[in-house]
Amino acid sequence: MMREEYVFSKLSPIAKRTTANIIRELLKSTSIPGMISFGGGVPDPETFPKEIMADIAKEIVEKEYKFTLQYSTTEGDPILRGEYIKFLEKYYDIKNLDLDNVLITSGSQQALDLVGRVFLDEESICAIGTPVYLGAASAFKVRAPKFITMDMQADGPNIDILEEALENMTEEEKSRFKFIYIVSNFDNPTGLTLSLEKRQRILDLAYNNDLIIIEDDPYGALRYEGEIIPTIYQLAENREKYELNPVILLNTFSKILSPGLRMGVVIGDKTIIRRLVMGKQAADLCTSPLTQRLTARYLERNDPMVQIKPTLELYSQKRNAMMESFDKYMKEIDGVTWTFPHGGLFSWVTLPEEIDTMDMLELAKENKIVYIPGVAFSVNEETAKKTSRCMRVSFCLPSCEEIEEGTKRLVKTIKEYRDKKRG
Amino acid sequence: MMREEYVFSKLSPIAKRTTANIIRELLKSTSIPGMISFGGGVPDPETFPKEIMADIAKEIVEKEYKFTLQYSTTEGDPILRGEYIKFLEKYYDIKNLDLDNVLITSGSQQALDLVGRVFLDEESICAIGTPVYLGAASAFKVRAPKFITMDMQADGPNIDILEEALENMTEEEKSRFKFIYIVSNFDNPTGLTLSLEKRQRILDLAYNNDLIIIEDDPYGALRYEGEIIPTIYQLAENREKYELNPVILLNTFSKILSPGLRMGVVIGDKTIIRRLVMGKQAADLCTSPLTQRLTARYLERNDPMVQIKPTLELYSQKRNAMMESFDKYMKEIDGVTWTFPHGGLFSWVTLPEEIDTMDMLELAKENKIVYIPGVAFSVNEETAKKTSRCMRVSFCLPSCEEIEEGTKRLVKTIKEYRDKKRG
Repeated sequence: MMREEYVFSKLSPIAKRTTANIIRELLKSTSIPGMISFGGGVPDPETFPKEIMADIAKEIVEKEYKFTLQYSTTEGDPILRGEYIKFLEKYYDIKNLDLDNVLITSGSQQALDLVGRVFLDEESICAIGTPVYLGAASAFKVRAPKFITMDMQADGPNIDILEEALENMTEEEKSRFKFIYIVSNFDNPTGLTLSLEKRQRILDLAYNNDLIIIEDDPYGALRYEGEIIPTIYQLAENREKYELNPVILLNTFSKILSPGLRMGVVIGDKTIIRRLVMGKQAADLCTSPLTQRLTARYLERNDPMVQIKPTLELYSQKRNAMMESFDKYMKEIDGVTWTFPHGGLFSWVTLPEEIDTMDMLELAKENKIVYIPGVAFSVNEETAKKTSRCMRVSFCLPSCEEIEEGTKRLVKTIKEYRDKKRG
Repeated sequence: MMREEYVFSKLSPIAKRTTANIIRELLKSTSIPGMISFGGGVPDPETFPKEIMADIAKEIVEKEYKFTLQYSTTEGDPILRGEYIKFLEKYYDIKNLDLDNVLITSGSQQALDLVGRVFLDEESICAIGTPVYLGAASAFKVRAPKFITMDMQADGPNIDILEEALENMTEEEKSRFKFIYIVSNFDNPTGLTLSLEKRQRILDLAYNNDLIIIEDDPYGALRYEGEIIPTIYQLAENREKYELNPVILLNTFSKILSPGLRMGVVIGDKTIIRRLVMGKQAADLCTSPLTQRLTARYLERNDPMVQIKPTLELYSQKRNAMMESFDKYMKEIDGVTWTFPHGGLFSWVTLPEEIDTMDMLELAKENKIVYIPGVAFSVNEETAKKTSRCMRVSFCLPSCEEIEEGTKRLVKTIKEYRDKKRG
């Protein structure tokens, strides 16, 4: 047997379904000199508090080596969990948490993988937006559940679709419906935020149909304007008539401190957290106590929400630069629309139907500009079709000048592609 | 619905099959004052090169922040992979590796989980030893494959069982036979080492039946006596007639540097590594670049095999202390046997049939001694029955004095338990 064929013959169904992450593959091309990238949602490394972290790193390896260099518990560093509880209470008004409500994961991606592992199989049903965050899609898709896909609207996913689907379900189908997955603030990839009204509606639906809500909130702290909206988790806490809070809240330090720490946090009911802990035991035993304690000591001595202010100022300027450049140049393309994010790192551009953004990418690279094609955020053929004329653009890494230049290149690319296609 | 019942109703079959890791639960009791633990296989923290690591930690956060604090590639830090290739060439005589043959994982447990994910499902067959390493068992068991279990002998698992099983298999069954899992040196839990002859025999079996070999070698560097035996991976490299090396070699820095880094390494054919990388993308995107670069710079500037010499001396003394104590006190128990490990951290004690080591554990705790009951290393009822009178004892953490005192307590416990049972 040939090598490829032999290895393929050995694969599990999950592995056969696993495809390479398009974004991570694309990002490999961003190192080409002169390339401007609207691609990755990676933070600007100049925003990392590197001196403070360097000192803490030395200190905790030298003085706390019995903890930082040793195996640790699966649940996570108790000091980090304690500090994070204080942080959530101070900034998100989430109260009454104790350590058993908190699980530290190896980045938010591991939390998504554990959610998939613990809840989904081929018989399961779950609801997601269209487009949907690629990392969640890849963690869920390998379990091959049935997806109910809700189209994105200005105030979050179209809940009517979910309501209608639930009305048409048999009790047996409902029993296989596991969760609704949602990025509540400044969604990846659309940049849109779920309104308070829709948060309450989703919660009603969850309660009335015994559903879990996976609330993914990596970008909540990156708000540039507008009022903070309570998390769905918090809204559920404020309702007193149910025994179990059905919301699992996913957070991360990747956007407010550093992605290199690979530090995710899951908040939820103890019974659910316990199951995720058991999943994590088999997945990687524990997250590095070194990076956990580094995060804990940082949180203890610094207020990340104060430290992040210059970063927010910087990102907000970049967001403005992109929106102004789009207003100025993008309008040359007939029928184009884009979202105006109140926070986070992304805008979502919808082009005329004749444009296939995946097909256009090669031309874009020639013009030294990259973005993420819309299909990357789809889970099946139907959603791939809906997203094929879209793209995700990120403003966090390029400078304001590069954003303007990049927009020009993008518009040039779209025109060239369209003209070529029209012949 | 009650909370527990509600959450259970939402679980995937994998999650329903997942049980808490007995060792990790047991280890929670080792913090009781006065307790002597023969339980965990955790290294002595005083052996960690903490000052060197503290300085490197500071340096790489301060100066290499663009790498260490940022997202990284799934495959792992190229500098670490390069350094590890040099290390394998120098100490294991493994040649001709390039970066694509190496994957960095979040500890060896993640490598085991990825192996389970990529190869196993309910239709699969795999071969393991009895007893078997608990972390491997938990990573494989959730996929619910059929296990062929080979009883341990002094020179490694009984290969005759595997040969016989293969002879009786249909071609269709053979096509679902994925891999043989084996800890080649100083096995966890038995402390036994696979002989060169059996390594060659397993390799023959793999070639003749198109099987993959998962060679787990976390303890290979901890040899206290005897000649180094080539890894199965290396033996396969030396055979030239096949296109693909069917061995996937798992290594870790947990025993030679620090478990807190959570640093595992997988060596294998590029085609196989590529599949594991795709699995890892969905599992946690990447291992922390901070702990990876810390390991890389350490390897670049220090020779872990030189640094580890005092540690080997220490562990070897402790092994001797345990073996001497066993000779002195354990012989009072009629019919008891134990293994004499040439390296690693464990010995495996087999008691008379009337002893149930899990049942005896409470009494042991009262006598301020803990061990790991044999059933922890079983995968089904048949293997649970075989291991119920056994226990894993580790000598790495207690002092030589504590080892002697712990042995006395263990013998006392066994006698008390036996007398109580006999009435």
